Amino acid sequence: MKNNNQVSIPVIKRLPRYHRYLEELKNMGIVRISSKELSQRMGLTASQIRQDLNCFGGFGQQGYGYNIEQLYKEIGTILGINKRSKAIMIGAGNLGHAIATHLHFENRGFDLVGIFDNNPSVVGTKVGGRTVMSSDTLDEFCKKEKPVVAILCIPSEYAAENADKLVSLGIKGFWNFTQYDLFRRYKDIAVENVHLGDSLMTLCYQVNKIPENGEDAK
Amino acid sequence: MKNNNQVSIPVIKRLPRYHRYLEELKNMGIVRISSKELSQRMGLTASQIRQDLNCFGGFGQQGYGYNIEQLYKEIGTILGINKRSKAIMIGAGNLGHAIATHLHFENRGFDLVGIFDNNPSVVGTKVGGRTVMSSDTLDEFCKKEKPVVAILCIPSEYAAENADKLVSLGIKGFWNFTQYDLFRRYKDIAVENVHLGDSLMTLCYQVNKIPENGEDAK
Repeated sequence: MKNNNQVSIPVIKRLPRYHRYLEELKNMGIVRISSKELSQRMGLTASQIRQDLNCFGGFGQQGYGYNIEQLYKEIGTILGINKRSKAIMIGAGNLGHAIATHLHFENRGFDLVGIFDNNPSVVGTKVGGRTVMSSDTLDEFCKKEKPVVAILCIPSEYAAENADKLVSLGIKGFWNFTQYDLFRRYKDIAVENVHLGDSLMTLCYQVNKIPENGEDAK
Repeated sequence: MKNNNQVSIPVIKRLPRYHRYLEELKNMGIVRISSKELSQRMGLTASQIRQDLNCFGGFGQQGYGYNIEQLYKEIGTILGINKRSKAIMIGAGNLGHAIATHLHFENRGFDLVGIFDNNPSVVGTKVGGRTVMSSDTLDEFCKKEKPVVAILCIPSEYAAENADKLVSLGIKGFWNFTQYDLFRRYKDIAVENVHLGDSLMTLCYQVNKIPENGEDAK
C-alpha cells in the first residue's frame, strides 16, 4: 500500500461510499466488478474510480476488474474501522438519542462508551442500552477511559466551551452536530461537521430550481 | 442578479454557510465586513468568497466590503427560503423524531405539513407538535396538500419503493437519511443525501491519521 498521508479530503470522503457499495455487492454474492460497472452504480466516472483507488496503491488487475471482498477489506483497513476507537456523546436530547440508537458505531470504527447530559431528568435514563451519565462525571470518566472522539449533540451556543474542555481532556476528534463550525478553533484535531440545516437549505435551493415545479417556482 | 442556473453544486453548498455566518454577524450588530475578514472567519480564501458571490452578481463594493444585512437577505432569496415549500416526513422513529423536533424548517424554506409512519403504535402520537398519520392516508394527503419534498427517515431497504411511490404522488425532492443513494433512480428530482454512516467513517479515518494519537495510531 502506498503512503496515504497525502490523500486529499474529497478522496477520503468518497471511501465510505465505496465501502458501502462494495458491502452491498458482496452481500449480493458478486465476486468481481470492473471500474466501469462500479462507476455506473456509484454515479462516478470509471477514471475517477481508478484514480481514487490508485491513491492507495490500486487493487485492480487490468482486464479482470476488482476483487470485491479484497477491496472491501482494504478500504475498511484504510479507514481504520477495525481499530474501534472509543467515542463519547455529549447531549442525550432527541438528536443524541436518535444517533446513539440509529447508527452501528461498531461497524464504523467506534465504540460508544459513554453518553453524558447535564439535565437531571435525563441522567440515569437508558439510551440505546446505555445509561446516561451526569456531565459532572466527565473529567473522571475521560481520565479513566481515554475516549478519542466526542459526538456533540448540544445546542450550538455551548459548542465552543464544551469542545475546549473536551480537548483538554484528551479528545482528538469531534463529530459535530451543532451549527458552530469547530474547525475555527483547533489545529491537529479532526472535525467532521454535520450541518443538517445547511443540507436542508441546499435542498431548498435545488427544489426551487426545478423548472417543472410549477407555481412554486416563481 | 445574474442568471444563476449554471451555478455549480459546490458553490450552492457553500451558500447556507454564508447565510449562517452572516446571520451570526448580523446578530452581533455588525453592519459591514470585508471579504478578507469574512474569509478568515469561514476558513475560505478571500478570492474564493469574491468568486462565489460574483456567481450571483456580486454584492460587494470595492473598498467598502459587504453590507451584511443586504447580503444575508439576498442569499436567503437565492436559496429560496422565503417560499416555504411543503415537506412531509416518512418514518417517525428515533431519527424522524429528532429531525422533526430539532430543526427549524420554517427558517430553511419548508413547512413540515405531515409525518407518516406505518407502525400502528406510532400513528396518532405527537412528534414536534404534529400528529403522526398512517401511511395508508399518504395518497389522499398528497393529492390534497401537494407537498414538494419528502424526508426519508425509514430503513434503507424501503427507500427505493417509497421514493418511487412518492415521485408518482408529485414529490420533487428528497431529503434522504437512508443509506440508499437515491441519485441512482431519478432525473429532474432533487436529492440531498445525509449519509451519517459515511460521515462517521470519514472521522474514523481522520482520527486514526492524527500522529499524536499515541497508541491508537498503530
